[in-house]
This record gives sequence, structure tokens and C-alpha cells, in this order.
Amino acid sequence: MIKTKAYAAQSANAELAPWDFERREVGPHDVQFDILYCGVCHSDLHQINNDWFPGIFPMVPGHEIVGRIVKVGDHVKNFKVGQLAGTGCLVDSCQVCENCKQDLEQYCLEGATGTYNSLERDGKTPTYGGYSNTIVVREEFVLHISEQLDLAATAPLLCAGITTYSPLRHWKVGKGHKLAVLGLGGLGHMAVKFGVAFGAEVTVLSTSPNKEEDARRLGAHHFVVTTDEEQLKSASGSFDFILDTISADHDYSLYLQLLKTNGVHICVGAPSKPVEVPVFGLLGGRKSIAGSGIGGIKETQEMLDFCAEHNIVSDIELINIKDVQGAYERMTKGDVRYRFVIDMASL
Amino acid sequence: MIKTKAYAAQSANAELAPWDFERREVGPHDVQFDILYCGVCHSDLHQINNDWFPGIFPMVPGHEIVGRIVKVGDHVKNFKVGQLAGTGCLVDSCQVCENCKQDLEQYCLEGATGTYNSLERDGKTPTYGGYSNTIVVREEFVLHISEQLDLAATAPLLCAGITTYSPLRHWKVGKGHKLAVLGLGGLGHMAVKFGVAFGAEVTVLSTSPNKEEDARRLGAHHFVVTTDEEQLKSASGSFDFILDTISADHDYSLYLQLLKTNGVHICVGAPSKPVEVPVFGLLGGRKSIAGSGIGGIKETQEMLDFCAEHNIVSDIELINIKDVQGAYERMTKGDVRYRFVIDMASL
Repeated sequence: MIKTKAYAAQSANAELAPWDFERREVGPHDVQFDILYCGVCHSDLHQINNDWFPGIFPMVPGHEIVGRIVKVGDHVKNFKVGQLAGTGCLVDSCQVCENCKQDLEQYCLEGATGTYNSLERDGKTPTYGGYSNTIVVREEFVLHISEQLDLAATAPLLCAGITTYSPLRHWKVGKGHKLAVLGLGGLGHMAVKFGVAFGAEVTVLSTSPNKEEDARRLGAHHFVVTTDEEQLKSASGSFDFILDTISADHDYSLYLQLLKTNGVHICVGAPSKPVEVPVFGLLGGRKSIAGSGIGGIKETQEMLDFCAEHNIVSDIELINIKDVQGAYERMTKGDVRYRFVIDMASL
Repeated sequence: MIKTKAYAAQSANAELAPWDFERREVGPHDVQFDILYCGVCHSDLHQINNDWFPGIFPMVPGHEIVGRIVKVGDHVKNFKVGQLAGTGCLVDSCQVCENCKQDLEQYCLEGATGTYNSLERDGKTPTYGGYSNTIVVREEFVLHISEQLDLAATAPLLCAGITTYSPLRHWKVGKGHKLAVLGLGGLGHMAVKFGVAFGAEVTVLSTSPNKEEDARRLGAHHFVVTTDEEQLKSASGSFDFILDTISADHDYSLYLQLLKTNGVHICVGAPSKPVEVPVFGLLGGRKSIAGSGIGGIKETQEMLDFCAEHNIVSDIELINIKDVQGAYERMTKGDVRYRFVIDMASL
């Protein structure tokens, strides 16, 4: 077994603190890499707090993981010791269902194995995430990471990146489309970068007027303050797509009015309780409300390669792991531009 | 002016009673046809009762109208006296907006003119519907009706038909797809017929076990009683599309679970109040909830031609106009198989 240093929550709502545990030995199809950086996702905090479902404790969060390979199993074909590697939200799936066969492991019909707060395929061994110094992952769920990009700023691509890239690709958002990005946080700022890179005309919708300068710096063409009725009115019926990154409760009927005929409101954030949707607002213009969850492994690699080619990374604030609790507090207030990343050398 | 006999509600919630009024003279671009049959749509009752918005009274309902042309204007090109003609939910639109130019008059950005309970383009003249003996409609909103089909049973195609045909075409439902039709009423029974005609594998979802025989007679391949947990469980994750014809309140989260990955829940019925949707249920399989409203004029003609070619009409109960109030009562209880049509000779 591999001795591993980590930060863990020992129970629901607990503060993170140092914790040692053991990872499995590197099997014939496994890759072990030492973690250099791990992004801090809002879902880390939601899961520690049991916001969505009862968690598995102790919990080592973190699913935006990059590092350098230190060992590979005998049958590993695509990775070598010394290369950079990454892992996102998934470390396994059944690999034989209809969805897995179509490279949609995130929608594995038997349930994919999350990188943390989940159980291995044996149904009993908990998985532990990236707030740790090393990780062992089966080859099929390891990503190649470019040496050309800022490595710390690459980590958030593994969740915030693919979660916004995947729906924009699925709905073929690009040239000729007007895309609104709802919420300018970790996911939203990546959605702006991808939307612009794909050729769409991008508008940021935000309650915070003070984010306009940043939105434009990130490449957005327009900015609408959603608490300003005049601005909202002038945006009425204008968007082909809204990419909604907000997981707090919000008014979906308000945003449906901003869509064009045939427009799609794509949710990548999800309030924990059901939301109210006016069905008449859908009928009146053949509109849709859709959801999208992260992305498959093949698409995640495609996204990472696209980012390497177009020099796209996340805007980050690098922190020491001892400061993660403070980072959570700032994240909860929306005070992060735009992703905290833990320098794992600080562990 | 053209003296017209009709049945009207003189105020909200009032019973229908005979009423005479005048229609405009036939203008150069108008077609006048004497009404032979008019379908009874649930929305007729909703509008009399102000369920959705304050109505315009006196109200002459009816938007599933067929009859024979008695007069055409000098500039009318495509219709001749003596031909059959029909009119559905729309009698006008701006005809110049982005949507009208794309044959989506139902989504006219300036608001289409409804066949009744609406105002002409002048913004002040009320429109009166098909519970009457004759109607004057501008040529662009008149449909050609086949002499080959049962004429009374053709009337409901103008609303129930196009409302279900249009989304099935838009989402390209056909061979290889599993389609569930939710609710077997006026719209639902047409959705079954079209789904089968387009080559989809069709399942009827209904709370009424006694509708199974009819569902199968209409062509459905499967029948699921939605109050039976076992049946519901076995249908879990199995449909590419659900066509939801229910306008009463119902549990959308229940049906989201029946969709496959990438599945679309298409609403053509709409509860008047917002409904609760679990966004997590959308994210977990890239699912969508969409709406669709009737269809454009070009597509309505395409649907009528398709029906003539494939011998598709509505299953109807023909009634005298004096019995319309009783028909409303039975319709409210879901006791109609599957559409009342008024024989206008009884007026």
C-alpha cells in the first residue's frame, strides 16, 4: 500500500485537517502520479456539508488534479514515468454500458466512480481525492496534460473546464450564435473563454456590476446587470443559448424570456431543491431547459488538447493547503477570481 | 358586412348560447368559407374560463375549422370557390419578423393573431372562431383540405394534429426512437398515430388502465400504467422522447426518470402555474424539458398532406352544437374518445 498525506474532513461540516491514509498499490493497468496542484471546486464544500447526499467520511476532496507520473503498471500503454498527468471528477465506470461505450462515462448507467466521496467498483472501498500528495488511477481515467501551459492554472480545466466545454460542444455553440453566460465564477469564466474561442458572441449576465471589467478582459462582448430592468429588457429574446453556472436558487422564468425562439437554457449548476419553471414560457418559443454534467474522458482529453492549442487556462489564485478553509469562506461569498488552486508542495 | 350565426360565451365562465354578429366583407386577399365542422379543443374551455389570461367577450370559440369556400377576393391565387378549406389556431401574424419569415408564424415576434379571443392586426377588432356558420380569413392562413378524408374527423388536425406533428418533426422522432406519449386524449391519440406513422416505437403512459385496448388499437406498441410502480420501474431510462400532452398539474420529476441519456421531455400541454423541475435530474443524463406550440402554416399544410397520404384523421364523436356544454363536461372528466366535433349543420 502507498502511504498518502492528505487534508480530510472527518465528518460532515467538519473543518479540513491533515490526515494520513493508504492508497492501493499500482496495479497492472494503473498510473500513479504525485499531485502538484489541485483545484478547489464549490462542489468540494457542498459534499463536505452533505448538501446533496450523505457523504462518505473521512472525506478527502479534490477532483481537479494534476501532477507528474511516478509509476505505471506493466500493462499501461499510454503513459510513462516523468510525464504530466491529470484526473478529473471520475476515476472509474462500468466501461461496458451503452453510455460508457459512447465515451459518456459521466452518464455510466451503473453509476460512475467519483474521484472522492464515492466507492470503487467493489462497492465498498471509498475513493479519496486530490487534496493529497499522490494518487493511483486506472489508465483509462488518466488525462495527458500539456507541458506548454501553466500547470497550476490547468488543474481547474479538469472540472470547471470540461463542465462548460462539453455542453458548448454538444449544442454546437459557435459562430453566429449569441451565448449568455449566467454567473461569472469558476465555471462561468471558463464558459466565457470557450464561448469566445468557439466564435460565439458572448454576453455575461451577472448581478455584480463590478465584474464587467473582468468579463470584458476574459473576452466577453457584452455585459448585462440582471438586477437592472432596463438592461434586462433590452436583452429580451436575444440569446440562442444561456449557459447557467449558478447552483444557488434563482429565477428561471426571468432567463427564459431572454432566449430567442428555439433557445436552450443549459444548466451546469443545480440548486439542491427542484426549481419552478413556467411551461408556458417554453411553449411560447419552442424553448428548452437542459442539463449537462461534466464530460466523458475522451472529450476531456479533447478539451485539454484544445486548451493547449489555444493557450486557454483558468484564472487562479494559488493557495497553501493550510489556507483552504479560508478559501472556502471566500468562495462562498463569490470572492475568488476565479478558482483557488492548492499548491500541493505546501502539504 | 357578413351576417354570421354563432354560439358565444357572453362573459367569463358563461354557458355558450346562440349569438349573431357580423364578419368583415371579403377583401382582395381573403377567402370566405362556410363552416361544416369545428373541433372542440380543451383550450376552448380554458379560454372561456379565463384560466390563462383575461378573455375578450363575447367569445366565439373554435379553432379546428373546416368547410367549403363560398367566396374569394380578387387577388387570391391558391383557392377557388367550391374547394374545401380549413383554418387552425391562427388567422394572421406580422409576416415580416424573423420567425414569420421562417414559416414559424406561431412564434411571431409581434404576436400572432389567434382565430378567436384575439385582436386583428389593427389592435382593436376582436376575432371570432369556428363555432359559427361562416368565416373570412386572409389567404395565407387558409389550408387546403383533402376531399379523400372524412371531413368531420379532419377538423381536429388543425390543432390537435399540428400540435403533436410539429414537435415530432422538429425533434426528428422516427425509426430507432422510443417515444412515450403522456396522456391519451385529443392530443395524445394524434401523437400515437403520428409516432407510429413516423416509425417510432410508441408507448402510451396513462393513469387509466382501461385505455390500454384503445392505445393498442391506435397503434401503440406498449402501454404503461403510471400509477403502477412496477411498470414505471421497468420503463426507467427507456425513452428517447416523452411527448407530454397533459395540461393538468403533474409530477415532471417522475417522467424525467423514464428518459434515456439525452432524452427530451416535450411539453405541448401546459399547467397554468409554474411546475417543479429537479435540475439534478436534467444534469444526470443531459436531459431536456422543452415546449412546443402548435405549428406554422407551411408545416400545417405539410401535416394535412401527410394525413391525406397516410389516411390519418382524428377519432371523433360528432355532436350537435346545442350539446356543446355537455361535451365540455365530459371533456373535463376525460370522457371523450378522442375529440368532439360540432356538426355545424346543427347551428
